[in-house]
Amino acid sequence: MSGTDRTQTTDTAPGPSIILVEPQMGENIGAAARAMLNCGLTDMRLVRPRDGWPNEKATAMSSGALAQMPPVTVFDTTAAAIADFQYVYATTARTRDMVKPVFTPRGAAQDIHERLAEGQKTALLFGAERTGLTNDDTALAHTVVTIPLNPGFSSLNLGQAVLLLSYECYQATEQTPAQQCPMGKSNPVPHEKLQELYARLEHELEAHHFFRTADQKPTTIRNLHNLLNRAEMTEQEVSTFHGIISALTGKKSPPQSP
Amino acid sequence: MSGTDRTQTTDTAPGPSIILVEPQMGENIGAAARAMLNCGLTDMRLVRPRDGWPNEKATAMSSGALAQMPPVTVFDTTAAAIADFQYVYATTARTRDMVKPVFTPRGAAQDIHERLAEGQKTALLFGAERTGLTNDDTALAHTVVTIPLNPGFSSLNLGQAVLLLSYECYQATEQTPAQQCPMGKSNPVPHEKLQELYARLEHELEAHHFFRTADQKPTTIRNLHNLLNRAEMTEQEVSTFHGIISALTGKKSPPQSP
Repeated sequence: MSGTDRTQTTDTAPGPSIILVEPQMGENIGAAARAMLNCGLTDMRLVRPRDGWPNEKATAMSSGALAQMPPVTVFDTTAAAIADFQYVYATTARTRDMVKPVFTPRGAAQDIHERLAEGQKTALLFGAERTGLTNDDTALAHTVVTIPLNPGFSSLNLGQAVLLLSYECYQATEQTPAQQCPMGKSNPVPHEKLQELYARLEHELEAHHFFRTADQKPTTIRNLHNLLNRAEMTEQEVSTFHGIISALTGKKSPPQSP
Repeated sequence: MSGTDRTQTTDTAPGPSIILVEPQMGENIGAAARAMLNCGLTDMRLVRPRDGWPNEKATAMSSGALAQMPPVTVFDTTAAAIADFQYVYATTARTRDMVKPVFTPRGAAQDIHERLAEGQKTALLFGAERTGLTNDDTALAHTVVTIPLNPGFSSLNLGQAVLLLSYECYQATEQTPAQQCPMGKSNPVPHEKLQELYARLEHELEAHHFFRTADQKPTTIRNLHNLLNRAEMTEQEVSTFHGIISALTGKKSPPQSP
């Protein structure tokens, strides 16, 4: 029940530490641990957990996360739990009558990311389920983080709040592009294959009297090209399209170029 | 068990609809509803919920959210559930062998935000707890959303996945600055008050032989000014600081200017 292995565990953590002050339900501690490890965070600290530590319900709810993380450390006071951090963020749901910088989770994650890059140790403080952090604990922190939510229904539980902050910290270091289109095992088709397909389609449409008037034809062809270009077809998909034309016309597919 | 009031509920929703396909546990449906309403989303649809609908465990776990949302609608097929949407996002944990654009939650939220502004109706599809979406259901969607997480431990439950996507959608419309410093009931202090304080502090430090050498004094004074300027003190805090000087020196505070 002491923080003796604190140094070992936090020095290897790739992100901020998560400190739960007076957590009541083991389930919430477990859900918080699961959320942390999902987002690559591994240093969890507890201040006066109501039901002591370790806690079987926390272990069960963590879905294996607690077993994969360094040991959770337990402290008697918030001051002791935050003693080795350069910068501490207090998460609060309510606006406090305190003059203190307030971050969104995204702003805090960016700030944490920059401080980590400078070698600073940071921690996020979370209060008890029903009451949140006390004003004294909030005043100990350097800054406040408040999650913008629907003002008409703001009802996050402790595990969800830890998830959102951990998620933002992970995203601040993540390089995944906001949108990408993996082509799977197929290669994107070279344009000459599209031109063959378009020529064959146009030929068959002509033969089947698709174009009512000569005036209409150029516009219709352009629209078809735009539609089919937008699909960014793979070679496999172009083959499938040739197969559709063959099936509908009863004609064999033209010989494929190698 | 039909979608008859679908039009009424979705037309008033300020964000995407959330569609859960074959959800198993009522608790997860309730947690998803709570997460949705926290983020201002109100149109929930279910496809073949294992335990039917309504579900007492869902109601309990929603913390009142289901009672405040329009009625959940239930469908027999995914195709029927998505019939009235212009753009559908399939959430998947695994990479599929499909040629389809892949969004991060943030990228998807931005895309949804832009489509909503154009009057398009959008929906996020979530699969069953253990198996996720089938390949057929994923193929029905226009695009895929995958949440970047710790590759060594990726274990989100359904409620958490709905929370992260709903949260990103809410943040895409949110105007809260990433960092702000509300000054509470106090006003920021005009600089002349700081100058009075600095002059008094310097006078008392001089009188108490704080400055060891004349050389050192200008640098020390500058450092103190920088430290105290960084704190961006309010009038109340400047008064408190004057009180500290009075207490430590045993001298009364100078008369305050009005």
